[in-house]
Amino acid sequence: MFQSATLPHVMTRAEFTALETPLRERLLDAQFDVAEKKRAAVMVLINGSDGAGKGEVVNRLYDWLDDHFVETLSYGAPTDEERARPGAWRYWRDMPAKGRIGLVLGSWHHRALRNRALGRLDRAAYDDVLENMIRAEEMLRNEGVYLLKIWLHMDEREARRRLKKLREANGAMRRPAVIEWDEFDTARDRARLAAAAMEMIERTSTGDAPWAVVPAADPHYRDAAVGDLLLQTLARAAAETPPSPRTLAMASPTQDLPKPSLVTALDLSVTADRASYGAELAALQRRLTEATTSKRFRDKGLVVAFEGNDAAGKGGAIRRVREALDPRRFRVHGVAAPTDEERARPYLWRFWRNVPRRGDVAIFDRSWYGRVLVERVEGFAEPDEWMRAYQEINDFERELHENNYIVVKIWLAISQEEQLARFHDREAKPFKRYKLTPEDWRNREKWGLYEAAMTDMVDRTSSRHAPWTLVEANDKKFARLKVLDAIVRRLDS
Amino acid sequence: MFQSATLPHVMTRAEFTALETPLRERLLDAQFDVAEKKRAAVMVLINGSDGAGKGEVVNRLYDWLDDHFVETLSYGAPTDEERARPGAWRYWRDMPAKGRIGLVLGSWHHRALRNRALGRLDRAAYDDVLENMIRAEEMLRNEGVYLLKIWLHMDEREARRRLKKLREANGAMRRPAVIEWDEFDTARDRARLAAAAMEMIERTSTGDAPWAVVPAADPHYRDAAVGDLLLQTLARAAAETPPSPRTLAMASPTQDLPKPSLVTALDLSVTADRASYGAELAALQRRLTEATTSKRFRDKGLVVAFEGNDAAGKGGAIRRVREALDPRRFRVHGVAAPTDEERARPYLWRFWRNVPRRGDVAIFDRSWYGRVLVERVEGFAEPDEWMRAYQEINDFERELHENNYIVVKIWLAISQEEQLARFHDREAKPFKRYKLTPEDWRNREKWGLYEAAMTDMVDRTSSRHAPWTLVEANDKKFARLKVLDAIVRRLDS
Repeated sequence: MFQSATLPHVMTRAEFTALETPLRERLLDAQFDVAEKKRAAVMVLINGSDGAGKGEVVNRLYDWLDDHFVETLSYGAPTDEERARPGAWRYWRDMPAKGRIGLVLGSWHHRALRNRALGRLDRAAYDDVLENMIRAEEMLRNEGVYLLKIWLHMDEREARRRLKKLREANGAMRRPAVIEWDEFDTARDRARLAAAAMEMIERTSTGDAPWAVVPAADPHYRDAAVGDLLLQTLARAAAETPPSPRTLAMASPTQDLPKPSLVTALDLSVTADRASYGAELAALQRRLTEATTSKRFRDKGLVVAFEGNDAAGKGGAIRRVREALDPRRFRVHGVAAPTDEERARPYLWRFWRNVPRRGDVAIFDRSWYGRVLVERVEGFAEPDEWMRAYQEINDFERELHENNYIVVKIWLAISQEEQLARFHDREAKPFKRYKLTPEDWRNREKWGLYEAAMTDMVDRTSSRHAPWTLVEANDKKFARLKVLDAIVRRLDS
Repeated sequence: MFQSATLPHVMTRAEFTALETPLRERLLDAQFDVAEKKRAAVMVLINGSDGAGKGEVVNRLYDWLDDHFVETLSYGAPTDEERARPGAWRYWRDMPAKGRIGLVLGSWHHRALRNRALGRLDRAAYDDVLENMIRAEEMLRNEGVYLLKIWLHMDEREARRRLKKLREANGAMRRPAVIEWDEFDTARDRARLAAAAMEMIERTSTGDAPWAVVPAADPHYRDAAVGDLLLQTLARAAAETPPSPRTLAMASPTQDLPKPSLVTALDLSVTADRASYGAELAALQRRLTEATTSKRFRDKGLVVAFEGNDAAGKGGAIRRVREALDPRRFRVHGVAAPTDEERARPYLWRFWRNVPRRGDVAIFDRSWYGRVLVERVEGFAEPDEWMRAYQEINDFERELHENNYIVVKIWLAISQEEQLARFHDREAKPFKRYKLTPEDWRNREKWGLYEAAMTDMVDRTSSRHAPWTLVEANDKKFARLKVLDAIVRRLDS
């Protein structure tokens, strides 16, 4: 692949200068278009051999663009806050907002490539990593984050010559350089690195986010090529592309055929034994305390998502969980309307930013499942958005799982009659009145739609590593015991 | 002080129950008032002896309040990301948004108190720390963050008894407890801690943010008292208090008397020697590279704020600085309209969140000085807000200075005639046109007001540890050399 990059690519200073002024104008125009529309963010991933000019390219782009809408995102060895969370967290944390351009040094590819070239990832593990990358990048693209993946290519001998020069210079006189592959010292090391890089480029070049291999021996040619690529990317990011129809073509879940609701399979009449409830609750809470304060838990994290009908008792159930937790080690996240910083980024960003450190607990009172529940039913998300959300959510949860997090998902189900009784009760009690809004009554009228959405959701996201627990919640006490039991079992397993 | 807290405070379960329901209703009402108005945030700082029930109080408040608008903020040993920045950064990072309540365990008082009680702070240093606290808390109050500072008091013998019980229990059976003073083991340790605590409470109780010492031996009394205090705090946070007139009473800077502009003292006709410019620029850039890549710099941070007239050449000067920096170690922050997350927090929050790690460089293209420049001139900030901003800014910069940051502040000054010429130039050149907005023309008409604001700003914020550098910028080359020189000198000093 990319054999042509090894051919000489040369551009005279005069050619470059003639090209630069119009290129700069067009880049600025395109950048402002992106900045004004705020429909997409652009991430320019600058990878390549040491000595090929990664830092110089960053500086050139700053010169050409309006730097008010540009940021450099640079990743080296992870900090302890980063190590305490899934590997992807640090990239999510810095995600540029729509309308902005991020210049990325040390992207996720760097880490994977390094581990592969050092022999820390075998073929199968490397395949998995690359596969996850492809899916994550596809998700980003669908969510309005355009990736320009650049590999600055330089002939092995030339790269070594420049690297030597850089190293000599780096102490004092010359400009600072981006040296990322310091460990790969011998010719053999570097050959292995180059092979792994070519493999990665081959495997992770997709239609939406292809790699661009840029010959970097001649700085004029290199910069002109990067500028041209960025121009194309900005133009695409600004264009009014409708949501890709590909996802729509996938079977959409039973919108026309009747499908029984999963709730009908539940026996909502079950109740807890009043006599033993107090002791059972206390015993489960003790087990939860033990499990979350044990040494074993320090390398884990617990993420609990609560969903369910309005008035199904989420608050009361969460309270019984919370009481058993160290107040310093949990956060409850009530999911309300997104802030403008959240709206300017991919849907999952607001949940990624709240992924707890290992050893901690995050409870979500409503969760990322809003995408396939309220957003689907109310039409806030387009069909292709909530259709692909099932896969995106599964990927998100698998990533948590693979990083030693336990993901517990609870659906609290009540009957329509029970809900009506609870609404009336809330109207009557002063300190419960705030819990009832006109929206609750409106949602109630869409009972069937929500039940269908819930059934599809459980069908499509009850994965092996993150199964749903459906909880019969007409009896609050029964529900609380079952919720605690579900969490404790997952922690103990 | 607070001798009364040592008297028995007891409340029967019946008394507590009778009180709880109406208290809860009123708390919820007050909380919703705060949440809807979004004018203020409330931070409940829960400090006190181990065994006094800090964790129980947190849980009780979660029960009483709507937990969608509550978050626990808990601070133990700092992470490496926190250690790499000023001590206050971690509290700024978590600052709750207006409308929300933060329950704080391990507040800034804890750290100071611990260091004092362990003998790590002598009297003078402790005084400084407490003084900074008072000023920071006053700033928070002025910016709409209401602090409820609670000290849960418990008799020494009783506290030890409970601590023992907690320790025994902590392994397995009982609920997790918040143990913060584990190191203070002996009676003598604990007496010293108690003395330091009382001193801190005495010294940092201000009219705006007094401490409340709550007798904690009886849990019913304790929780009722905390609930009552919170109710008062919420009521104040929701009330439509106008900005305090105290600040207005301080001499406002020469609004009526004529005051010469500092710019008149500059000789704007100075120019750089064209023949030597290239070599001088390169030499200064090399010195900047050396200074920011040296070992010595790893424990420091560099923060550069650029202000000046429109079209004074900030962009070009920033570019010459940027070129000399490691692309991985700097960020340029263009200061645009605040996001809604920023608007929901104190004015300085958006700058605190961008304080760089030590070893890194942050360049602000326009800065926190907007408060006393554009916000003052355009009337976006009230007089009391921009008047107190001088002190708040000085405090902010002193905090950076004391944490080993170098703060460089650049004012680029051009004449009115030069500005007009540059505006026309921008109109003519396609890739500079975007730099000129109708606002620039409007600002130009307020030249005198901006000059007065700039003079006041330099008078009031050119401190010893963070002086202003006024740069004659009619000649761009002269300005660039002087900017680089100013930064390099501060780094070398």
